[in-house]
Amino acid sequence: MRMSTFERIAIVGSGALGSYYGAKLARQGSDVRFLMRADLAAVRRDGLRVIEGGEGWRLNSVLACGSTTEIGPVDLVVIGLKTTANSSLDELIPPLLHEGTLLLTLQNGLGNEEYLAARWGKERVLGGLCFVCLNRVAPGVIEHYGHGTLSLGEYGRVPMERTRVLSALFSAAGVETRVVENLITERWRKLVWNIPFNGLSIAAGGRTTDLLLADDGLRAQVRALMAETIAAAATLGHQIPADFADYQIERTHPMGPYKPSSMIDWQQGRAVEVESIWGEPWRQGVAAGAVLPRLELLYHLLRHITSP
Amino acid sequence: MRMSTFERIAIVGSGALGSYYGAKLARQGSDVRFLMRADLAAVRRDGLRVIEGGEGWRLNSVLACGSTTEIGPVDLVVIGLKTTANSSLDELIPPLLHEGTLLLTLQNGLGNEEYLAARWGKERVLGGLCFVCLNRVAPGVIEHYGHGTLSLGEYGRVPMERTRVLSALFSAAGVETRVVENLITERWRKLVWNIPFNGLSIAAGGRTTDLLLADDGLRAQVRALMAETIAAAATLGHQIPADFADYQIERTHPMGPYKPSSMIDWQQGRAVEVESIWGEPWRQGVAAGAVLPRLELLYHLLRHITSP
Repeated sequence: MRMSTFERIAIVGSGALGSYYGAKLARQGSDVRFLMRADLAAVRRDGLRVIEGGEGWRLNSVLACGSTTEIGPVDLVVIGLKTTANSSLDELIPPLLHEGTLLLTLQNGLGNEEYLAARWGKERVLGGLCFVCLNRVAPGVIEHYGHGTLSLGEYGRVPMERTRVLSALFSAAGVETRVVENLITERWRKLVWNIPFNGLSIAAGGRTTDLLLADDGLRAQVRALMAETIAAAATLGHQIPADFADYQIERTHPMGPYKPSSMIDWQQGRAVEVESIWGEPWRQGVAAGAVLPRLELLYHLLRHITSP
Repeated sequence: MRMSTFERIAIVGSGALGSYYGAKLARQGSDVRFLMRADLAAVRRDGLRVIEGGEGWRLNSVLACGSTTEIGPVDLVVIGLKTTANSSLDELIPPLLHEGTLLLTLQNGLGNEEYLAARWGKERVLGGLCFVCLNRVAPGVIEHYGHGTLSLGEYGRVPMERTRVLSALFSAAGVETRVVENLITERWRKLVWNIPFNGLSIAAGGRTTDLLLADDGLRAQVRALMAETIAAAATLGHQIPADFADYQIERTHPMGPYKPSSMIDWQQGRAVEVESIWGEPWRQGVAAGAVLPRLELLYHLLRHITSP
């Protein structure tokens, strides 16, 4: 087992998120191999370009691969795929595994750690929550608008030595990283924002967060969905204080006419992560005995609104 | 008081509904005056044409008027306006009134009898529920596809002699009419269908009733919204048996890919009757102590989805 060294890293799902974190790690000296599809030729030719803080830098010798067989076994797999493509992991992951390979999912919502754990063993699984604004502005070109904090945790365990080593690796690469005691509690905390704002922005017909908050009736639905999310989390053993909802609403006001990521996906015709953001929290909450009528209605509406 | 004779009748809101019932009454011999806007010139020139049962008939000498001042006082005002235009009644109704004028609203949802009662006295107000498939296929041309039953009742009173006289008038004109003991209970019964099907057909992104029923998750929302509607009605003193929901779902299956009227309004860019179908039932139910989370969310979503 060489899991605490992370000599070789694979990025699976090299969209803006995977490309950005992978480029940061590679720039700092790690052996990072990127699984790429659409941008493969462009990145092999021109490398990866990152624009951040008003300046740009380029990673020239990018190990961009067209398959995970080409990548081969690694010490760490960083998964940045859209959760709507999770079933493709069944073929993508096996070629990357050796006995001690760790799987780090940076994906949205609930159910992703479970997906990995059920197939390749829960002892391999970590998760991260990304608070970062990124956009892929052209093939192989990632723009970073702000933030970047990564919250890292173990799946179903408190942090271990390897968690802190991994955190140090990201920190050394210039990614502000913190280790969290309970990863799934953090996921629920993030859902307190994502469930109402991402969901209502679509279901109300395409409304930015300022419009959701400006209308008394919709703001009451934001708050009620936050309360349901906090109740579901509590039923599952994740305690989130009730005033966390007020804090989340307060911090959203200064964001102005903000488009939640799911709203952007929907408006641009891309798949929306309905199952991981609404479906899985609803299923887990109801299975544990929570009463979630608004989340249930919102989930089923979103399934249909976002399907072709 | 000559309220039991209905010698002169005004139709306010001469869309498909008002034009059809007005034409039937006029054809049978009543003095019916139609308030018209868009179709005024066409109807003055060509009369009203009704297509029903595979055949057509024409009402030639139609008393089509451009204002209610032109119509003057009548014995009965039949109101077929969209509820979204209710505020226009404030100017339209007064010229039509004498001491005994009755106001019969055939409009959808809740709150219409209250609107009339608050302004012109509750003793004048009756209501009717129309179960009829009509379409205005061209100016002054109404097609009647089926059904036609009219349920008539008093507002806040059991049926009176005048209710039965009015029912007989419609029956004589060829409109199957029944007198109902409690008008508002009947309105709630109709809402048990309209709240879920009209609402979800829009909120799920434009889905006909067969699609709402074919999906397990949406069908569960239909049923849950029916249960909330029945609970709201019960809280307000209107008892509807729980198995009425099953009956409404069963009768919807054979309707196939049916578009609820609100979905057609929405798709054609017309105003949707959000307040009378969802807003007022939610407000009245909550004020009486009912717990209506799905109806509340659906109402606020629909307000925004259907607004420009």
